[in-house]
Parts: sequence; structure tokens; C-alpha cells
Amino acid sequence: MITARVPVTPRYAETDQMGFVSEASYLPWLEIGRSALLKQHGFDYRQFEAMGYWLPVLEVALTFHHPACYDDELWLVTKMGSRPSFRIRLEYEIWRGDLLLTSAHTIQAFVNRSLRPVKPPPEFLAKLEHVFPRPSRTEI
Amino acid sequence: MITARVPVTPRYAETDQMGFVSEASYLPWLEIGRSALLKQHGFDYRQFEAMGYWLPVLEVALTFHHPACYDDELWLVTKMGSRPSFRIRLEYEIWRGDLLLTSAHTIQAFVNRSLRPVKPPPEFLAKLEHVFPRPSRTEI
Amino acid sequence: MITARVPVTPRYAETDQMGFVSEASYLPWLEIGRSALLKQHGFDYRQFEAMGYWLPVLEVALTFHHPACYDDELWLVTKMGSRPSFRIRLEYEIWRGDLLLTSAHTIQAFVNRSLRPVKPPPEFLAKLEHVFPRPSRTEI
Amino acid sequence: MITARVPVTPRYAETDQMGFVSEASYLPWLEIGRSALLKQHGFDYRQFEAMGYWLPVLEVALTFHHPACYDDELWLVTKMGSRPSFRIRLEYEIWRGDLLLTSAHTIQAFVNRSLRPVKPPPEFLAKLEHVFPRPSRTEI
Repeated sequence: MITARVPVTPRYAETDQMGFVSEASYLPWLEIGRSALLKQHGFDYRQFEAMGYWLPVLEVALTFHHPACYDDELWLVTKMGSRPSFRIRLEYEIWRGDLLLTSAHTIQAFVNRSLRPVKPPPEFLAKLEHVFPRPSRTEI
Repeated sequence: MITARVPVTPRYAETDQMGFVSEASYLPWLEIGRSALLKQHGFDYRQFEAMGYWLPVLEVALTFHHPACYDDELWLVTKMGSRPSFRIRLEYEIWRGDLLLTSAHTIQAFVNRSLRPVKPPPEFLAKLEHVFPRPSRTEI
Repeated sequence: MITARVPVTPRYAETDQMGFVSEASYLPWLEIGRSALLKQHGFDYRQFEAMGYWLPVLEVALTFHHPACYDDELWLVTKMGSRPSFRIRLEYEIWRGDLLLTSAHTIQAFVNRSLRPVKPPPEFLAKLEHVFPRPSRTEI
Repeated sequence: MITARVPVTPRYAETDQMGFVSEASYLPWLEIGRSALLKQHGFDYRQFEAMGYWLPVLEVALTFHHPACYDDELWLVTKMGSRPSFRIRLEYEIWRGDLLLTSAHTIQAFVNRSLRPVKPPPEFLAKLEHVFPRPSRTEI
């Protein structure tokens, strides 16, 4: 498993009239988490795009255990638990101190500019090799 | 089951540099759908708040089958399939013509201003009675 | 002068914890207004992009006279007061009933994909000819 | 004059299909800048709200000199050039390296919960006294 931990501070515009962070404001945060996870392992999302890859989100789910507030000091933890193939699944947790506020996951596809599913770039898989060894032929 | 169908037209700011509507842009749409569903059955979300109720989202999940584009003519279908109690579950579909682009659901809680779970206002349940008859005592 | 009038209903996610529509939520509305103005005169913003034109915003200014609230029935009035050339200037007003809530303007440039300023497409100017006659040579 | 300098990194959801940061994405950044400016001088925006003050934006204007891109390393500089009274005016600049991308200003009002204009809290003015000395009686 690989993990990235980044601070997030809710902006005023991310709250709604209920007085908490709107559920709509969390999705852009998840992208910050996965962007940080990639960078930490030597990969920049801009590189994917420059190489002709896109990573559209196919599925996203969030569970809100406790509300977040404006200007809270939050930590967003992003986890990749398995070797990405045509798809990449990430888990997310948002913490305020030791209180878990939100759990989430996303599934993204590697696609080319025609939106056809493709394998991730070999350079990317190579960088993840030491964490998620390549499956032996019989496993595939 | 009760259903509301509202048009949605993606705004330019709702796209991202991939050229499609960003996954982050869909959550505010779901709120439009549930707001329409309530109004159609004689209830206004502002009324809930005026009566001291809030309906925070506890869970939201979206599955993206096909991307949506700027200025597409979309239809958002919102469905309530069961009588709400402390929680209310809604299903959503986003269509472009006869192509289903997105499926989603949300679970919201009725809470008071102290964020404690409460039953929905009786006026609201009364309006839904003819669709979702009150469970008999033995069912509870 | 040409004018478009479109309804706008603030979404819940467009409010902030002050209980009103966040100032950040107005900019995507202005784009709805100008998109409607163009369509009303036979032009679709997607056409500009298909023809290789972009219309980035160079300047935007908003003055807030009164706050807008969730689910208000607002009218956005968009006005073009002069013939567009390399730049296009639009004025906007947001009304609730006969109360003017917000005044705004934007200046956009016609640019090509290299971000170089270009004249608007002749087809577009032709459609505006009857409103804003072409300046005579001596005026230029 | 007092100044705060904070880093800003555009999120993917803040871009639009033109491939740059949408003009709509800048307004929430300005709030980050003013929030940082206040904190640096010992004041937290949450304190204002806790004390019954709100600071709605009355006016905002942005000029875009160059576009910003996803994941750029930007600096947002926020400046207060004069002693706030019923209103507070701030200037903003967004830089990428030594290229000025955007200039902006906002005017906010101090209001109470009935939206009536009020003087800023004395504690706040006291903290700014050494920068912007209190005007002598004859100046008022």
C-alpha cells in the first residue's frame, strides 16, 4: 500500500448555509490527494496528459461521519492498495485531529484521447513495481 | 415510487481541461433534483429549514457511464423509492437523450440544529402517505 | 443594444455559511447569461470553439447591492451595448422582482488557440449587423 | 500597508475546457488571501463571526493578464493599504514566478446579523493601530 497525507483547509466558499462544508466541496479535495500521491511516487498528473493519457473518474463514493467546518485544519489521507491496471482505485480519509470525518473512494480509468481504455504507461507501473510487484503470468 | 424530472445544462465553469463536465460538478445538480422532487409534492426545502430541520448528506455515490459536455441538454431524474424515516434515500439518473450518462444515490438524515437525528416533520410524511402508506404497527 | 433575460435559481451549494449566495457563485451565472445572449442571436458558444476561437475573460467586476438567497427566483439580464471587435463587453444585472441585487460587467477577448487576439468570426458580426451597423471606413 | 503572501495551486476542477483556470475559480482564492492577512495580524475570520460580525463582499473586480494552469505554483499577494472603517478594501495580485497573472480588489462591509453597517470591532482596529494610526479627530 502507498499513502499520501496532505493538509486541507476548508475555504469560506466551500461552506453552505447549514454552516458546514457542503458535500459538493469534497470532490475537488480528493483530486488534491491523488495528485499528491502520484507526485510522491515520482509522477505528475500533467505528465499523464502530456503522454496522451486521461484518468476520468468512473465511480466516486463518499460517506460523511461528521461535518467539517470553515478553516478547520484537516488531513486528507489517500491510499492505493493494489497495483493499477486499466483502472486505478484509491481510498481516502479526511481527519480532524483523531476524528475521522469522511471516508471515500474513487475508481478511475486510464483512457486515450478517444476515451478508449488503455493500460497505464509502463514508466508509471515501473515506479510502482517495488510496492506492487508485477503479477506472475499465471495470476493474470 | 415518486419521481421528478428536471432539465440540466452544464455550465462552462463546470467543465475541466479534459473537455468534459468535471465529476465535481455533479453534486450540486443532485440537490436540484431533490429540491424539485420535494416541491412537486408540496414541500419546499426552505420550509424544512424554517421548521428547524436540516438534511445533511450522509452518503453519496456516483457512477459515470459516459461523460457529459458543456451545454448538453440533459435530464436529471430523481426517485424516492421508499417512505423516508430518520433517513431519506434518493436515486438519480442523468440522461442525454436515451443515453444514461450517470447513476447516483444519496442518503440524507433528518437532524435538528444540534445535529441530532430526528423523525421527518409529520406534515411531510402526511404528504407522502398516499404514495408510501404508513407501516402498520407490527411492521415497525 | 441587445439583451437576454434568463431565470437563475441559486443552488444550495452556492450559498455559504453567512446564509446568502457566496460572491464566488455569481461568475458561472454570468456565463449562462452571455451564452443565452449569443444563442438568441443565432450563435452558439460551442460554434466559436469549433471554429477555433476562444473567448477568455480579461476583466470581470461585480457590485453587490443586496444579497441573494437559496432558491430565490432571480432574473439575469445580459446586455451588449456596442459592436464587438477584438473585445466584447457585456453588462449584467441580477434582479429579484423589482429589486436590483447585483450589477456586473465582463470584457472578453477573441483569441485563437495560440491565445493571440483575433477579430470575431465574420459570420458572427454579420448576425449583429442589423443591431450594430458596421462602422463606415472613416470611423475606424 | 500590510501584506500577506500565500501559495495557491490550481486544482483540476478549477480548470475549464479551454485548458486554463476558469475565471470563476479565482474568487475563492481571494478569500484565502484575506483570511491569511487577518491571521498574520492576530485576527481570525471565525472570531469576527463569533463576535456577531459579517464581512459580505460589496464589490469585486479582477483583471486577467495571463492565464493560470492546473498545478501551477502561484503566489497570491494580498494588501491592505488603508485603515478599515465601515468598509475594508483589499488589493490582490497573483504571480507565477515574476509574471503577474491577475490583479484584483475587493470591498467588504462590516455588518451585524441584521446586515446593518457597523464599525469594525475595536480589538481589530487596535491590532492595526501601529500600521494605520487612528485619524485625529479633525481628520474624521
